[in-house]
Amino acid sequence: MKILFVSPDPRPERWINLLEAALPQAEWIVWHPELPCQEADYALVWQPPEILFKKEPQLKAIFNLGAGVDALLKLSKLPKSLPIYRLEDAGMSAQMAEYLIHQVAEITRVMPVYRQQQQDKVWRMQSPCRRHEWPIGFLGMGQIAQKAAKAFSLLEYPVAGWSRSEKRIEGIDSYYGDDQITKFVQRSRILINTLPLTSQTQGFLNQSLFDQLPEKSIVINVGRGQHLNEMDLLNALEYGRVSHAILDVFSEEPLPKTHPFWNHPKITLTPHISAPTLRDETVKQIAEKIQKLASGEVISGQVDRNRGY
Amino acid sequence: MKILFVSPDPRPERWINLLEAALPQAEWIVWHPELPCQEADYALVWQPPEILFKKEPQLKAIFNLGAGVDALLKLSKLPKSLPIYRLEDAGMSAQMAEYLIHQVAEITRVMPVYRQQQQDKVWRMQSPCRRHEWPIGFLGMGQIAQKAAKAFSLLEYPVAGWSRSEKRIEGIDSYYGDDQITKFVQRSRILINTLPLTSQTQGFLNQSLFDQLPEKSIVINVGRGQHLNEMDLLNALEYGRVSHAILDVFSEEPLPKTHPFWNHPKITLTPHISAPTLRDETVKQIAEKIQKLASGEVISGQVDRNRGY
Repeated sequence: MKILFVSPDPRPERWINLLEAALPQAEWIVWHPELPCQEADYALVWQPPEILFKKEPQLKAIFNLGAGVDALLKLSKLPKSLPIYRLEDAGMSAQMAEYLIHQVAEITRVMPVYRQQQQDKVWRMQSPCRRHEWPIGFLGMGQIAQKAAKAFSLLEYPVAGWSRSEKRIEGIDSYYGDDQITKFVQRSRILINTLPLTSQTQGFLNQSLFDQLPEKSIVINVGRGQHLNEMDLLNALEYGRVSHAILDVFSEEPLPKTHPFWNHPKITLTPHISAPTLRDETVKQIAEKIQKLASGEVISGQVDRNRGY
Repeated sequence: MKILFVSPDPRPERWINLLEAALPQAEWIVWHPELPCQEADYALVWQPPEILFKKEPQLKAIFNLGAGVDALLKLSKLPKSLPIYRLEDAGMSAQMAEYLIHQVAEITRVMPVYRQQQQDKVWRMQSPCRRHEWPIGFLGMGQIAQKAAKAFSLLEYPVAGWSRSEKRIEGIDSYYGDDQITKFVQRSRILINTLPLTSQTQGFLNQSLFDQLPEKSIVINVGRGQHLNEMDLLNALEYGRVSHAILDVFSEEPLPKTHPFWNHPKITLTPHISAPTLRDETVKQIAEKIQKLASGEVISGQVDRNRGY
């Protein structure tokens, strides 16, 4: 069994060492565009170039080294029938939940004020956070959002989720479909976007959605940069109902130095680090999946090419 | 039924309005030391003066407006047989869990680095947090610690707790008694103190404990200031195994302006806000307890005067 590792990672050996240890019966190859056809069975990919699919038409399946496959599906040379598996959880949901709790507490517990008070040697208790004033809403209720929703529910925030189809999850109010989006947004003072990026969800975070939020809302984008209409957000921060935005993803990454988001007083931004791929967990998951697939079993995480995720 | 409200709160009417609404059949009295004896049945207290117990010897029970009763039990005029009830949870545990997750993520997810990067317009992913490098240990496993331990466990940190007697909690490694304290401290890179303050636990966070921690440990004190030997902490931060301390409680509060903690580069401090008493939840809990008590039922949360909490 031959498996390609296809990634812009400048130190692929860190992956290969782990992959060889996890699946020693396979021949692991760090792929680059100059290599002739390797007759490989599988490929692990992150941002692969089109030419991969021209050079290795015999691939039986590819494994994406992340949860979002939007960039991959845009490749025109990607064979229509090639099965694609995305990374499922692999430590990402716990990291995402932690990131979101941290960012929400920054706001609801006024932590920047306390940091300033320490610098100024000021001892002053601010008004405590009253949970019912901060209903949280998740756009998208996939695996990653569900873990975070559960964590916020444990912390006694009112939590709701909106998704394409109904999801019944204990302690979380479920909204679904086009009919219920308005009702969902109107109750969500903290709106967290975790949608997959598809042609339907592109530009979902826009003026008309922001206009339906409660007053003094918080918008958090940990989905994809293309979900957000950037001008609409800047307007909503200036004139509208959004009082702060927390952004981890951007339509252009790295975010250009000249972008107005960097130094905006009402924007907190991080460089796409809310839920990084963890090597150990990822290797373990993909090695297990390849073993099962090679022995004819059905495995989870296959991308639905029509749905787009 | 007459009930006294005894607190240094400068705006007691905010409490009284809620208390009257919750328990309208009682006569609520904002107590002050000049009042003659009111022949009251119960008292809600926060930092009461000694004279209260001299003036109102007929009190049948008192309700403390917080979880910690260490200051109350030090009062020499407090009748030995007077039942004391402490506040149980009432929203405190969710707030505490949130505070702790926020502070831990500050360290393990290097959030101050990302804030600086935003200011400097730098796009750089730092090494992700690997959970197994950050085992968390709770000193004390009361209601408040249990909620936080559960939350950290959901976030996939290795979590252990140490208490006087064995506690079996799913997903949490239990250590107990004097025999196991060393083993517990040696495995806890993030040590979180939630012990009640008693004569046995005073000064518990000291040099000999710090010396047993793993290298580059984090010490978090959300118990009481008197648990901590302040000079020992400063030494451990300078020469020892503690790389950062997060302190929410102090032996003198407000912390004096001249105290070396304020501007210490390895100390994060907050003014006793990790789990503030929430009025709505507190009123609801105490009103229910008084009704039960008045009708002869046994209620939870009674302080064991021998144990000290």
